[in-house]
Amino acid sequence: MTPGSAALGHVRDRVDRALQSFVGQQRGVLLAGGDDLRPGAESIAGLLAGGKRLRPAFCYWGWRGAGGPDCPEIINAAAALELLHAGALVHDDLMDASATRRGQPSLHRQFEARHADRRWHGSAGAFGMGMAILLGDLLICWTDEMFHASGLPGDALRRGRPVLDRMRTEVFAGQYLDLLGQAAGDETVAGALRVVEFKTTKYTIERPLHLGAALAGADLAGAGADLAGSAGGPLAAGALAGSPAGGAPARDGGPAGGDGSLAAAYTAYGLPLGIAFQLRDDILGVFGDPAQTGKPAGDDVREGKRTVLLAIARSRATAGQAQVINRYLGDPLLDQAGIAEVRAAITGTGAVAECERMIGRRVSEAIAALDGAPMTGEAREALAELAVAATARDG
Amino acid sequence: MTPGSAALGHVRDRVDRALQSFVGQQRGVLLAGGDDLRPGAESIAGLLAGGKRLRPAFCYWGWRGAGGPDCPEIINAAAALELLHAGALVHDDLMDASATRRGQPSLHRQFEARHADRRWHGSAGAFGMGMAILLGDLLICWTDEMFHASGLPGDALRRGRPVLDRMRTEVFAGQYLDLLGQAAGDETVAGALRVVEFKTTKYTIERPLHLGAALAGADLAGAGADLAGSAGGPLAAGALAGSPAGGAPARDGGPAGGDGSLAAAYTAYGLPLGIAFQLRDDILGVFGDPAQTGKPAGDDVREGKRTVLLAIARSRATAGQAQVINRYLGDPLLDQAGIAEVRAAITGTGAVAECERMIGRRVSEAIAALDGAPMTGEAREALAELAVAATARDG
Repeated sequence: MTPGSAALGHVRDRVDRALQSFVGQQRGVLLAGGDDLRPGAESIAGLLAGGKRLRPAFCYWGWRGAGGPDCPEIINAAAALELLHAGALVHDDLMDASATRRGQPSLHRQFEARHADRRWHGSAGAFGMGMAILLGDLLICWTDEMFHASGLPGDALRRGRPVLDRMRTEVFAGQYLDLLGQAAGDETVAGALRVVEFKTTKYTIERPLHLGAALAGADLAGAGADLAGSAGGPLAAGALAGSPAGGAPARDGGPAGGDGSLAAAYTAYGLPLGIAFQLRDDILGVFGDPAQTGKPAGDDVREGKRTVLLAIARSRATAGQAQVINRYLGDPLLDQAGIAEVRAAITGTGAVAECERMIGRRVSEAIAALDGAPMTGEAREALAELAVAATARDG
Repeated sequence: MTPGSAALGHVRDRVDRALQSFVGQQRGVLLAGGDDLRPGAESIAGLLAGGKRLRPAFCYWGWRGAGGPDCPEIINAAAALELLHAGALVHDDLMDASATRRGQPSLHRQFEARHADRRWHGSAGAFGMGMAILLGDLLICWTDEMFHASGLPGDALRRGRPVLDRMRTEVFAGQYLDLLGQAAGDETVAGALRVVEFKTTKYTIERPLHLGAALAGADLAGAGADLAGSAGGPLAAGALAGSPAGGAPARDGGPAGGDGSLAAAYTAYGLPLGIAFQLRDDILGVFGDPAQTGKPAGDDVREGKRTVLLAIARSRATAGQAQVINRYLGDPLLDQAGIAEVRAAITGTGAVAECERMIGRRVSEAIAALDGAPMTGEAREALAELAVAATARDG
């Protein structure tokens, strides 16, 4: 058993069942529109069968840490984040021209193949693209549907809503910055880290934790500085703090969070952990086993991804190492021999060892940030386990 | 002044202002993430500056018809539909490879040009596609944000939520069916009408009306048969009807809608009007003036769109007329001479005159469906005006 399997497994199985149930209902809605929608419903169900459910796990423990009780309603609300994630992955694979996701052909490739097999009219590629856009849109919309049908009380949903809103704007804005950086050729470590902040840290860890806390009625004033960038509209810190929620359950281990220190602790935990998580993802993207990653070996190199690992490798590379990296980066025909060569070059720069050191340090920082935070002991322990599990080598 | 300008203008100006205010706030959020997001924010603002605001108008009058008072909150909630529509248009233009929208380059073309001008890395087309996917996703997500921040009471939002959910599943499912039908070569009138039902009738007219009615507390049981296709989950008729809303305001002109007859009247109005609206759109897509449509002349022909107008034309065409239609349909190089030729062929089949007759008949049916419906007289008049305005030749 890997570390953290208890905390992860606890939520994962229930999230799986909640998603199955929701997608089964939607399947009924889609098939009422005709059997033609069956392939779409099946592709969505297949995609949602996989995934580590990290965002639901952070949302769930964000709720529990704020004193929220274990109940099916929070599982439903947390599981909704997995629909957003699946939709973003479908669109991401299309943008990256990725052929594989979770060990299966990516959605646009599934429909491209369907078109080609049946010798339909027009371009198979355009058909695959269109279907992936539409099914991704559906998944993104279903996030809200599952969230609002979670069964949580209206007050809780109203408190959580601005966090969900902010999380979505951040993730798509982060992807925009990523795409722009790749196009404009920003290869700096700082540029890569800015993308990590939006695309990974906030989206995967910090906002799911804040969402759980907001749903449970915690004061999010501690997250205020972070949200103060808004023009003072419904997204501003004041709106996010919402009503101070007289119904918030009691917490052990500290004051009842009226000073917003729980949200601040979640941020202090999320920032280093997000970077550690992304660094692990970067390493797996070059060195990972396809059986584990669900992607072909060396896929980040093939796709020319502008990762922090690569930025560090470039910054430390000898002329010879840089030449090898540049030769293969973004080469769609990258083969096993090329992967071996580029892996050796990257390892040779010391970037992998440096990333492993950074991961270890950031995970420790994340866990230390929970010390003395006003949260339940059970949640503190689960979040420490999650930090380790989410960044483990066997990911 | 065109017919219906009072009913349309009444809502349109206020919807415009609500959208400007919301997009201004979001601009602040995006620019807090760095100035790099400015072009994205500006493209969105530019796109949202145009549009006839038909869906907000139907939502607003659906609310007023159910006895809801005139107030800024319903304008905000109704305006949220325009964000969904803008996001769907961005994705639609990408799928159709449309170069123009609302008289401006389509979003993917704007970013493609930006990439090419700056001689950035990689493919300008892929960059434009990625940006259009992400900005469309943002707009689709903002729908929920604006809806829930509208200021309407929580009870109203809870009643409206399932209608909004259903509307979104229907529109993306409808687009899926459209894309599939085009690929599989379904050129029947029946096939084209099924797409119209989902993509236009329900999405543009019926669901916005139902949403307004649900927000105002009307009983939606009359829409039950229509929604009974669901697997009985949170989307089923029972859930949609929601709480019978003791707060529903009084209506004149009939019983207080406890039998769901208001929702049924909206459906009876929406079904014929949706077809009339789509037929007008089909005619404008071939014969419309670019200054009016915001699209190049003959764009539906150039894009090979499988419209009802074309299905009727094909079903009535002589061999010679069919040859002309088939020669130009889907020809990306279609020029003025080709447009003139294909227009003459389509007109020669009698399909345009047939469509005009169908439009006139359906608009009359729509207006007649409001007779005796349990709604306010002011709303009945406004909806009659809207039916005429939405299907007028000068669109």
